[in-house]
Amino acid sequence: MTTTKEQPKQYRVIGTRPIRHDGVDKVTGRAIYGADFKIAGALHGKVVRSPHAHARIKSIDPSRALELPGVKAVITSADMPRPKAKMVDLGEGPMNALHLRNNLIAEGKALYRGHAVAAVAAVDAHVAEEAARLIKVEYEPLEPAIDVRAAMEPSAPLLHDDLFTDDLGETAKKPSNVAKHVCFEKGDVEKGFGAADRIFEGEFNAVMVHQGYIEPHNATALWNADGHLTIWCSTQGAFTVREQVAEVVGLAVSRVKVVPLEIGGGFGGKIPIYLEPVAALLSRKTGRPVKMTMDRAEVFEGTGPTPGSSIRVKIGATKDGRFVVASADMAYEAGAFPGSPFVCGMLTVFAPYDIENIHIDGYDVVVNKPKTAAYRAPCATNAAMASETLIDEIAEWAGLDPLDIRTKNAAREGTRRADGLVFPRIGFEETVEAARRSEHAATRLEGPYRGRGVASGYWFNCGLKSSVTVTVNSDGTVNLVEGSTDIGGTRASLAMQLAEVIGVDAEDVRPQVVDTDSVGYNDVTGGSRVTFASGLAVIEAGKETKKKMAERAAMLWKASPDDVEVEGSTYRLRDGSKSIEFKELAGKLGKTGGPVVAQGSVNADPSVGGGFGTHMVDLEVDPETGKVTILRYTAVQDAGKAIHPAYVEGQIQGGVTQGIGWAINEEYRWSAEGRMTNASFLDYRMPTSLDLPMIDAIIVEVPNPGHPFGVRGVGEVPIVPPPAAIANAIYRAIGVRLRDLPMNPARVLRAVLTAAGTPPEDE
Amino acid sequence: MTTTKEQPKQYRVIGTRPIRHDGVDKVTGRAIYGADFKIAGALHGKVVRSPHAHARIKSIDPSRALELPGVKAVITSADMPRPKAKMVDLGEGPMNALHLRNNLIAEGKALYRGHAVAAVAAVDAHVAEEAARLIKVEYEPLEPAIDVRAAMEPSAPLLHDDLFTDDLGETAKKPSNVAKHVCFEKGDVEKGFGAADRIFEGEFNAVMVHQGYIEPHNATALWNADGHLTIWCSTQGAFTVREQVAEVVGLAVSRVKVVPLEIGGGFGGKIPIYLEPVAALLSRKTGRPVKMTMDRAEVFEGTGPTPGSSIRVKIGATKDGRFVVASADMAYEAGAFPGSPFVCGMLTVFAPYDIENIHIDGYDVVVNKPKTAAYRAPCATNAAMASETLIDEIAEWAGLDPLDIRTKNAAREGTRRADGLVFPRIGFEETVEAARRSEHAATRLEGPYRGRGVASGYWFNCGLKSSVTVTVNSDGTVNLVEGSTDIGGTRASLAMQLAEVIGVDAEDVRPQVVDTDSVGYNDVTGGSRVTFASGLAVIEAGKETKKKMAERAAMLWKASPDDVEVEGSTYRLRDGSKSIEFKELAGKLGKTGGPVVAQGSVNADPSVGGGFGTHMVDLEVDPETGKVTILRYTAVQDAGKAIHPAYVEGQIQGGVTQGIGWAINEEYRWSAEGRMTNASFLDYRMPTSLDLPMIDAIIVEVPNPGHPFGVRGVGEVPIVPPPAAIANAIYRAIGVRLRDLPMNPARVLRAVLTAAGTPPEDE
Repeated sequence: MTTTKEQPKQYRVIGTRPIRHDGVDKVTGRAIYGADFKIAGALHGKVVRSPHAHARIKSIDPSRALELPGVKAVITSADMPRPKAKMVDLGEGPMNALHLRNNLIAEGKALYRGHAVAAVAAVDAHVAEEAARLIKVEYEPLEPAIDVRAAMEPSAPLLHDDLFTDDLGETAKKPSNVAKHVCFEKGDVEKGFGAADRIFEGEFNAVMVHQGYIEPHNATALWNADGHLTIWCSTQGAFTVREQVAEVVGLAVSRVKVVPLEIGGGFGGKIPIYLEPVAALLSRKTGRPVKMTMDRAEVFEGTGPTPGSSIRVKIGATKDGRFVVASADMAYEAGAFPGSPFVCGMLTVFAPYDIENIHIDGYDVVVNKPKTAAYRAPCATNAAMASETLIDEIAEWAGLDPLDIRTKNAAREGTRRADGLVFPRIGFEETVEAARRSEHAATRLEGPYRGRGVASGYWFNCGLKSSVTVTVNSDGTVNLVEGSTDIGGTRASLAMQLAEVIGVDAEDVRPQVVDTDSVGYNDVTGGSRVTFASGLAVIEAGKETKKKMAERAAMLWKASPDDVEVEGSTYRLRDGSKSIEFKELAGKLGKTGGPVVAQGSVNADPSVGGGFGTHMVDLEVDPETGKVTILRYTAVQDAGKAIHPAYVEGQIQGGVTQGIGWAINEEYRWSAEGRMTNASFLDYRMPTSLDLPMIDAIIVEVPNPGHPFGVRGVGEVPIVPPPAAIANAIYRAIGVRLRDLPMNPARVLRAVLTAAGTPPEDE
Repeated sequence: MTTTKEQPKQYRVIGTRPIRHDGVDKVTGRAIYGADFKIAGALHGKVVRSPHAHARIKSIDPSRALELPGVKAVITSADMPRPKAKMVDLGEGPMNALHLRNNLIAEGKALYRGHAVAAVAAVDAHVAEEAARLIKVEYEPLEPAIDVRAAMEPSAPLLHDDLFTDDLGETAKKPSNVAKHVCFEKGDVEKGFGAADRIFEGEFNAVMVHQGYIEPHNATALWNADGHLTIWCSTQGAFTVREQVAEVVGLAVSRVKVVPLEIGGGFGGKIPIYLEPVAALLSRKTGRPVKMTMDRAEVFEGTGPTPGSSIRVKIGATKDGRFVVASADMAYEAGAFPGSPFVCGMLTVFAPYDIENIHIDGYDVVVNKPKTAAYRAPCATNAAMASETLIDEIAEWAGLDPLDIRTKNAAREGTRRADGLVFPRIGFEETVEAARRSEHAATRLEGPYRGRGVASGYWFNCGLKSSVTVTVNSDGTVNLVEGSTDIGGTRASLAMQLAEVIGVDAEDVRPQVVDTDSVGYNDVTGGSRVTFASGLAVIEAGKETKKKMAERAAMLWKASPDDVEVEGSTYRLRDGSKSIEFKELAGKLGKTGGPVVAQGSVNADPSVGGGFGTHMVDLEVDPETGKVTILRYTAVQDAGKAIHPAYVEGQIQGGVTQGIGWAINEEYRWSAEGRMTNASFLDYRMPTSLDLPMIDAIIVEVPNPGHPFGVRGVGEVPIVPPPAAIANAIYRAIGVRLRDLPMNPARVLRAVLTAAGTPPEDE
């Protein structure tokens, strides 16, 4: 909770901790979330889902459902138009439009348990649920592909007859579950491995985990008689919902208006669409608004968890602990349709380190599980679990402190990432140094079955498109119209940047997240981009506001705008004869040409910035149960410049918490037939506040050269290091290196017993 | 319904008749009006109103009401803060802030029957109504001032002890019911009357009439725990509601957000506030949202009708029918508080004519009736009834056709109005000429008790402040974010202007009226200003859009923006080597710097423009009942340029219909004690479609030099001539000139009988 590297105070608003603008509404329950939205005459919709992980759909008979009083319509894949475009933008990357459509309602085959096959609209949610049970679907079950490595084999059951690996040469001549193969090369790995004194390697497996947002997916749609479609929903990106829905229901984007309501967590999982087009098509069929919400089992089985993976990593080092070569073979589960963010794993796996020779192969593999989605630094946590635990082995072998080996090998300004990007000024070293100087590092950890682990992590900032509008009120306050869903306090972080630019207080800015008809295009809230990229748009709008206000001052004084200079909130003539404050000037706009409105639009350069974190964890293993108790956790992160330090700390604490859950408890438990056996919050174990100590967040500030205030995105980095840090700490506690996630009590106990020479029978 | 003066087609979109963007919602009942708005946990409020026209409030005892189960709060004047500002902007003019407050809830004295004295909030509307009855108010009735001329006398009962005529010299030393006296002088009236061959004069009386909008006033307010107030209501001006409410509840404007819902008619009557601050204060007291709606009697008795008046006019003419001098003494009812739009009567009474010598005295007089408000060309209809019927007398005396005398005396470019304004190019003569060439004029009217009347009318355009934002969608459509309540089709008329500027179709523009937090300041929808002034803002934003799009094309082609030329929707390099259409370019914004957003803000010059109309009516008088039947009606009007001719015709037809109602039926009937005896739509007789023939609207287009497309405001002119035209027609039918409004069957029958030498006993 302490901020190191205190800089000379240069800002009035930035770096302070005002109350967030949406705070009162959120604590009093006044904020309107998707499920709170009510519209007169609404029907309720329910989805019928496949009980099989892989099955041919032989027939769908809605007749009994349609006979039930109160049932208004049933739709199946036959009611869905075929998209015109080949690809559709999901906000963080494109997806095949036909796949998107077929994930919404299965066509021909159900590809995972929970895959939607039909949907019904009825007068209320209970009738809809009953009707969904009455829709008779006849299936022919098929053998599922469940394991990612097995699914890559030519002999594996095929999900798609028409899916070809797009760059595997001759392999591409026959269909495969491998949707994509990407390769990064840097230097000469063969020579590198030859030069290494020792090569460390391992295979690391992770299973799917869910983002675990509290609020289930929801959507209300109204297909109006004039052919305009309005959707109210909780989403990370109203505009990308608009693009996706428009494509799959066959409307121009301007015919679709998306009204983003408050969102109860997303973490990447509320970028794809699920219910929105289904509700829309039910609305078209019935002429009435249709509201749909998922229950928790539907969220687990029917939405996008983050991919499980199988990652094989090799790192070659010299005796003095220098990494000279690294390679990785990374297979990620796409789920039922291609398009996992596997490249993000490749981009991050070795990124914190300056390694001369790197080779990375990455694979996007379809399996009979839900289509995966992003989850906070998607694929990077799986990757760091592999690289950061091997590095811990190297440190031990080289006799180096885990922090020292990181400093020794740290990527710096000018280091080239495996994909070719050359880092600008980054703050990785500074995070290691801050960890070294932390109170945590200065405190010894003692006692049996206790261990301290260290790991680092990296995430880039997405840039992408943002636009905002600023209007000046007559009382000298300003309204900020934005289109970025506020998940982690971005109303505040954007308002504060605007306040800083125009010289008012954070409370004088009234931020408002509006619908897609009322603001310029904005990409998703994701990729740690909003405070960074929408911040750039806000700064642009702030500067335009000042320019226009200076013109008004000039008008007032019958002077040339060139003669007006602006300092903070003061507008004055260069000769010093006149001056006026922003607030007073705002009251005179009517007399000087009318309202002042300004706007900012950016397509931000994503190559700048990027954030690093270094984490330290103390834990204790219960040798009798295998339970891991986190004793102390310190997370250091380079925020570039923390606009609102409390919210940066909150992001760090939240990310670490999710990373801890992932490390020691959370998992999709699969039956052999591909059924998730723990699809409820009772059985899918997320950490609660009772499970964790207070997490110490240390903010380092190495300004991002690509942002006027130096902002780096902070939301995703903190989930990357925890599993590796915990694995390294468990090794220190029990002497065994765990390589598979989660490191749940069963696995830890097995390790303890095996180390003690009394391995248990197989599970 | 025909358009004369067809101009060479120079526009793609302007002048066409696309379906209005909000049309389907309005005909299917999907549009959300104030009374449709529902918010969770809302209480319902009800106002307690004075049964006396003038009474001292001795005490208010809410105790029995508060004992009623379900009653949550009662407020009286004591709960209302005293405003800090002296004046508050009502959108079409300022009002004394304390008077505004005291009109909302009476302090000390009730000044009209229906004056609010307290309000109550309860769990539902029925309990609230019951509770309102239980609030015990003790009154000391006072003698009311009902007649406007009598109220001006020093002996009249005084409404306000502290009201002084502000420019009456020594008279101002004692309080008076005359709130304001304004005088216009042009030339030398004494010399003028000396030069006249004959002087025509008369006194014309009109009683209050109501705008008669179908939708009663409504407001829902939520005073949030964070000190922000949100108001949902049906209003002509969300921003002026914001200003007024902020002032009377004591908040900064930025703490108040007004969400304008659809509006079911306003005509000037939905500019002032009534329920909004009352609901807000009840919400503050209860911590819950409070919804209030009026019933019809409350609308009649508790809101602002248009002033009744007593107008004395003299016009001196030469034998050849030239007007050489005119004077007027115009007393208008302000209602209980000062501030009628009486000056508008003064500005319009002689405006269509070029008269060398003019003197006008105008008086704003408080009387014990509801505080008056604007009603479509406020005060101008009363004025035209006087001047236009005297002119008819002059025409008859001079042996001139009523159209010819108007042409002979017509104001033209360069003519000076009584207040000094010099007309730019105007189209009055052209309206007279078009009437002369109309099918109506070419058709003889025959038969007993039938007559044809002609009258003209004038209304200026308000300018005022507007701002809009434009965003470009990837499919080449654009969103238009505006803040002008759409009453008469302005979503369409603004969208069409934008479409014309940027070269897309009207359907490609998606207009949206948003709340006060989401767009720059916009003044009221009133004064015939929106298509004109918000149109100017739209044109500005359209030009900025084109400029930005040209920059994007340049970026695409790696050229300088100076090398890109735009023609319609085509962007091309000057050397002809590259070209791209707007829609295709719109799809490439992501690659060229992100979203394109543009804005326009204006404070439009009101001195340009102004519109004129000339009407012709045929009617028949039933000599046995006095009932007047309108046989044929033709209204000619200069629209400058009709953006959407069907909506201009609709405005003309609507205005004429209201003018006819005013002429022959509508009136506030007052008892001697100041009670309105016909406060329901059963007893207050507005014309229905069964009462009227189809009204022929002829649009003349003499472009307004102050608008790029030549637009003149069209909404108000058409209500001005009807009473005078009908009075003139009645004279032709029965030989008697009626001078008081309404010319209802009782008055007409009396005239018939008097003309026949058998006058009836007094009513």
